[in-house]
Parts: sequence; structure tokens; C-alpha cells
Amino acid sequence: MEWVAIVTEKLLVGMGPFLSCEVSLAKAMLVSLCINIIMSVVGLGAVVRTIPAVADMFINAGLFGRDLCKKERDKKIPESMGMVSGSVFLIIMFLFLAVPFGHHFMNMQTPFPHAAFAEYLTSLLCICCMLFLGFADDVLNLKWRYKLVLPTLASLPLLMVYYVNMGSTTIVVPKPLRVWLGLTLNIGPLYYIYMAMLAVFCTNAINIYAGINGLECGQAIVIATSVAMFNIVELCGYQSKSHYFSLCLIIPFITSSVGLFFHNRYPAKAFVGDTYTYFAGMTFAVVAIIGRFSKTVLLFFLPQIFNFLYSVPQLFRLVPCPRHRLPRYNHSMDKLEPSIAEFKASAVRSPVLVVLRMLAKLRLVQFEEGLGEDGNMCSLNNLTLINLILLLLGPQHEGKLTRNLLILQGISSLMAFFIRYPLADLFF
Amino acid sequence: MEWVAIVTEKLLVGMGPFLSCEVSLAKAMLVSLCINIIMSVVGLGAVVRTIPAVADMFINAGLFGRDLCKKERDKKIPESMGMVSGSVFLIIMFLFLAVPFGHHFMNMQTPFPHAAFAEYLTSLLCICCMLFLGFADDVLNLKWRYKLVLPTLASLPLLMVYYVNMGSTTIVVPKPLRVWLGLTLNIGPLYYIYMAMLAVFCTNAINIYAGINGLECGQAIVIATSVAMFNIVELCGYQSKSHYFSLCLIIPFITSSVGLFFHNRYPAKAFVGDTYTYFAGMTFAVVAIIGRFSKTVLLFFLPQIFNFLYSVPQLFRLVPCPRHRLPRYNHSMDKLEPSIAEFKASAVRSPVLVVLRMLAKLRLVQFEEGLGEDGNMCSLNNLTLINLILLLLGPQHEGKLTRNLLILQGISSLMAFFIRYPLADLFF
Repeated sequence: MEWVAIVTEKLLVGMGPFLSCEVSLAKAMLVSLCINIIMSVVGLGAVVRTIPAVADMFINAGLFGRDLCKKERDKKIPESMGMVSGSVFLIIMFLFLAVPFGHHFMNMQTPFPHAAFAEYLTSLLCICCMLFLGFADDVLNLKWRYKLVLPTLASLPLLMVYYVNMGSTTIVVPKPLRVWLGLTLNIGPLYYIYMAMLAVFCTNAINIYAGINGLECGQAIVIATSVAMFNIVELCGYQSKSHYFSLCLIIPFITSSVGLFFHNRYPAKAFVGDTYTYFAGMTFAVVAIIGRFSKTVLLFFLPQIFNFLYSVPQLFRLVPCPRHRLPRYNHSMDKLEPSIAEFKASAVRSPVLVVLRMLAKLRLVQFEEGLGEDGNMCSLNNLTLINLILLLLGPQHEGKLTRNLLILQGISSLMAFFIRYPLADLFF
Repeated sequence: MEWVAIVTEKLLVGMGPFLSCEVSLAKAMLVSLCINIIMSVVGLGAVVRTIPAVADMFINAGLFGRDLCKKERDKKIPESMGMVSGSVFLIIMFLFLAVPFGHHFMNMQTPFPHAAFAEYLTSLLCICCMLFLGFADDVLNLKWRYKLVLPTLASLPLLMVYYVNMGSTTIVVPKPLRVWLGLTLNIGPLYYIYMAMLAVFCTNAINIYAGINGLECGQAIVIATSVAMFNIVELCGYQSKSHYFSLCLIIPFITSSVGLFFHNRYPAKAFVGDTYTYFAGMTFAVVAIIGRFSKTVLLFFLPQIFNFLYSVPQLFRLVPCPRHRLPRYNHSMDKLEPSIAEFKASAVRSPVLVVLRMLAKLRLVQFEEGLGEDGNMCSLNNLTLINLILLLLGPQHEGKLTRNLLILQGISSLMAFFIRYPLADLFF
């Protein structure tokens, strides 16, 4: 372990001027971050090797899917592989548990940071619950009401720990509104409702921005990397210990997701399942809550938020919604095209039709009327960001489409940093 | 909620002389126990109603079994229903979380009992992990090595919290040995190894003492009730707050198990699955560790320990072990008989044969030699406590057999109390 010490020393010398906390504490934090990174890399290897080893076990258990956007549609591809990443993540975190509290274990005279320890444990509890729930959903196909209620329940312990640790429920008021509301505003219980909703939102936002190889995993990796960068910036700038815990959770999440991405990228040899989207969504909610950046985190979800808003007409049945909204596979070109939903014009209320016509003029939807024998049918592309990108850029090969969507996610993250730092300074 | 207050008052007046702690604390504890009981009873109703509602969902997902000890062997019976009890248990505990710490929430000036809170959260984390693992096992049929390693990993956070909260690793030396070892002995790390093994033992001990309708559930209910009684005795006698937390966990466990038993008793309309045995085993390990009675708890496992020891020759393959060791169903009598394993005498080492002959003389096994055409075959009853009871009492109807085994479990619990109190006073 000598080289770890050397690397740490060098990092400390380099970061010294930026670290505004005492050097001994910073040193302990850096050492445990290094151990965290090493364990996470080992975890990555474990995920990459375990997935092919357990694939048949999953297929035999009926946990498989067929890839609808491929020439060979009949091949059984193991589903729910997020369970492997999630389990490896939990094992890493269980083993890592002793590390950040290491010097307290050694020296029991100093008061043990029970509050931080409880937050850490609760994070794992929430994530473990969601992993269980996600896997149950994959196996049993739970109803929608469970999917909304159970994440809220699963986040309860975390909210309670937030309350006990006297987490702030105060928001800083933007400059233009300060004349009326003052510098800060304590929104109390509303803040807790917001945090509970965050878990539900993160989970479902990733779940509906999905469907092509590597997208669920890839977007989660980009978001997680952005979160990690944000943590590092805040950690160096403001000595915020809460960001350190967030970082300890997000690093193993990144590596266990990369391991999954390795098998899930085009052409997919494994599907992630709801297990993964639930696991990822809850992890983001948890790190945001224990890291005390539950508002900032939404900035990293810009494509997901856009996708959700764009999907609203179909999700809330203002427009008929088919069971699958995947892009359509064009066999002859080996490319994906936007998929179309057809329905009777009479099935849609007239204000909705007006809005659709406007959106069609803005080229945000592909909406055609007067189709069918009696001219009574309409066609509309399925309202997902994936289909919109295909509309704007034309049909694309699946691998390339995922790459473009992940680049978009990356650009959104850069925008998020711009909004969070230079832009926010103007308003706060 | 007025009547709750009245009941509490009466209980307090009655228990007053026995409660050696201050009355205000005792009052708070009794109030939260009452709330716990009410929530647990609601949970019981939820389990009873949910199981038939989700049965088809489980069967469609391939989670079903066939009852080999019935006339109608082809009927599909939903498996893994322990998942419903486990989930209801977790939901109760999440909602109950605020109650025992209620007066701290209201009055944030008093120091919050972070240590106790962390123990509570970790207990739920360990149980949630095992529930996930058990369900994964039911779906995927995990290999044996996972079943031994994963419970150990899942109990790690609990051991860490035990360490942090300065749980004792000291055992009281029995009187005859005190000349050499002194009054107490600190066995340090060995104690932690013991606690980690406890989780593995409890889980697997219940798992191998199973196979007839209602037995898994029924034994867990008897053990849990014994644990609850032990907690109450200790709580009244010695004001041990750790027993109070144990009680808060075990009451919802009892009711959610009773709900499951309602459907799992003869003739079973639902099977419990590994999900339940894992859940139950971990719950016992957890309450024993946080309640600081990790040695006493084994006294409530006497039939399971006997069953384990009796099974050793088959488990460790000293004697050939068939895949199923269930009793054999006698169609004409509608009764169960001991099931028999047949094997060549040469497949077993001679010292084992000598032991088997001795046990046969003691009527502890049914062992016959010189069978088959060449007189080279042996027959031996499958070495489970269920088969032994059938050997001793003769063939029995399945429902009656379960009842007898549960009565045996109850008698063992009475013995356990006798060993723990009058007998232990002689030695300690």
C-alpha cells in the first residue's frame, strides 16, 4: 500500500492550497477516497466478469428479453442485469463502511460521528430497498401504483435522518424576488415533500428515457460523473463534508455502471431491467439528499426533464399512447426511425389538436392529419426525446444514436455547470 | 387515540412496581409499544389480504411449486410468499421509525440518541438485504457458496454498529471454570465471528427444518413469541433498553408471519419460499445482536440445532443424500411416512456404518442392511427431525404432524426459559 501513500501525498500537495479544511482531515479523506477508488475498480472487474457467468441463470428463470431493434429478434438476452451492478455496489459499500470512520474505530476516545454514520447507513438502506423493489418489478411486473408509492416509502428513513441531523429546509431567494421574500425562505415541510418526490422522479425519469442499447446505463454514468465532478469542486472549494460522503457513494456507482455498460452497449448482450433504473434513480436521490444538493442535482437531469415534459401528452393520455414507444427498426437500412402512433382525430380533444399543429410547425413533432380512407385518422410520432432526435437528425444506426444521446447528455451537464456557477452568481 | 392512553395508563399502574426505570421513560416506551402493536395488527390484515391478491402474479412469473404431500399434486401453489410478509414488515418498520424517537423529534434540545437510531437503521438494512437475497435465491436458484457468503456480508454493517456502540464482547464464565478463567472473559474478535456465524446459522437452520405445510412459518412464530416473552421479562426486570428495540422489531415480525401462516398452514394455499426463511433467520440474528442476547437466542433454536446435528451425516455427505428429504406421502392412508434413502453399503465408510448400527439400536434411525438382490444395499431414513418424529410416533396426517412439531417447538421454548433462568443461576 506504499504507492497509495505516495499518490495521496502528491495529491495533497497539489490540492493543499484549494483545501480550506485542516490538512489532517483532508489527508484522511483523500486516503479513504483512494481506497474507495481501488475497491470500485475491483468492483468494475467483478461486474464485467459476473454478468456473462450468471446470464444463463437469469434466462432459465425467465428473466430475458428480445431486442426489437435488431435483425435477430429471437435471441434471448438476459434481463435485470442491474441486479449484478447493484449487488456489487452494495458489497463494496458494506466493505468500505469501516474506512471513512477508520480513525474513529482506532481511536475510540474521540466522539464517534454517529450522525454521519446514520446517514451513510440509511443511504444504503434506501438503495437496497429500491434494488429489491426493482428486481421484484422485473420478476412480477408490479402495477403503477406500487411504483409511485414504494419509492416514497423507501425514502422515508432518509428524510427522517435528514430531519434528525437538522438538514436545512431553507432556500436562498433569487435576487429579483428578495424585495418581497427576503434573503432566505424556510419552506419547512414542503422541502421534505420535494425530497420524497425527488426519489420518485429520478427513478421514473430514467425509466422512461430508455429503450435502446446502452442508453439507461450510459445516461446514468454521465449524470453520475457530473455529480462526482460537482462534489469535487464543492469539496475543494468549500470543505463540505457532505459532498465527501456523496463522492464515496457515487464512485462505486459509476464503476459498477460502467461494468454493466460494457455488456449493455450496442449490440447488447445484457439488458439492465427496471432493477437498474430503480437502483440508479434512488442512488441519485440519495447522494443529492445526503450531499445537500437536492436542487442542483436536477440540473444534471435536463434531458430527462425534457423527455418527461415532452412525454406528458402521452403519459397523461391526452393523446393515445401505445404500449411500446421504442423507435422503429428499419430492416433494409439497419437504422432506427421515429415510431408513429396512429389514432382517430375524434379521440383527441380539440385544444390538444391545436397544440399539436403548433408543435408540428415548430418541427418538434411529426403530426399528420386527414389520413385513412375516411380522412379521419391522424399520425403522431411517439413523444420521446429519442424519437425527436431521430426526427431532427434523420434515421440513425442504433449504436450511433446512443452515442449522440450520450453526447447530448454530456453537453447538458456542461450547461448545468454553467447554470450552477456563473449564471447562478447573477441571481443569488 | 384516547383509549390507547387509557390502556397505557392501566398497564403502567400494573407494571409500575416491576419497572425499575423512571416512569416517564417507561411511559414513552409503553406508548410506542402500543402503537407498534396496532401497526403490526394492521400489517397482519395487510398480509392476509395481499397474499391471495398477488398469488396469480407470482404464478405467472414462474414462482410456484407443487405440493408433493397431497393427492392433487398438479395444483400450482404460489411460492416465495415470504416476500409479502417481509415487505409489509419493512413498511411497518419504516413508518414506525419516527415513533420510538418521537419525543426527541418534538424536543430537539435533548441530545438525539444517534447510537440507538443507527442500530435500528442497520437492523432494517440487514433484514432488507436478506429479503432481497432470499427473493433472488427463489427466482434464480443461487449456488450454495452464495448462501453462506452473502448472509455474512449482509451482517457486516450490524457488527460494525455493535462495535461502534461499544457492545460487550465479554462472556461470563460458568462457576466451575472460574478458578482458571476468572469471573468474565473478553473473547474480542471471536465474539464478532460468532455473531456473523449466527446470521448464517439462523437462516440455514430454519431452511433445512422445513418441507411440510406451515412448519417454516409456525416454528418462526413460536421462536419469535419466545423471544418477545424473553424481552418482556428482561425489560420489566432489568430495564434494558436494548430489549425494548428488540421487542419493537419482533412484534411486527410475529404478526406478518401469522398472516403468512394463515395461508401456509395445512392445506397450504401459499408457500413461503427461501425469501421467508432468510428473512426470519436474519430477523432473529438481528434482534439477538441489537438486544444483546446473542447467546440466549440459540436456546430457542433447540429443535433446529437438533435437526442440524441429526442432518450432519447427510449434509456433509458421510451418507448419500437425495435431493429432497421430505417425508413420503402415503396415498391410501392420506398420511406421511418417513422417507427412505437407499444406497450401496460400499458407498459408506465402515466407521459410519458402525455409528448407524448403534443409532439404529437406540431407535434414533431406521437403518437396514443386506437388502437388494445381492444383499449389498442399505436403507436409511432421511435424517431430519420430521422423519424421526414419524419414526417414533408412526405415520401421521400432515396437519397433525405440523401441530405436533410446533408443540415440540413450544416445549423446547419452555425448556429454554428453564435453562436460562433457574438452571443458569446455578452455573453463573
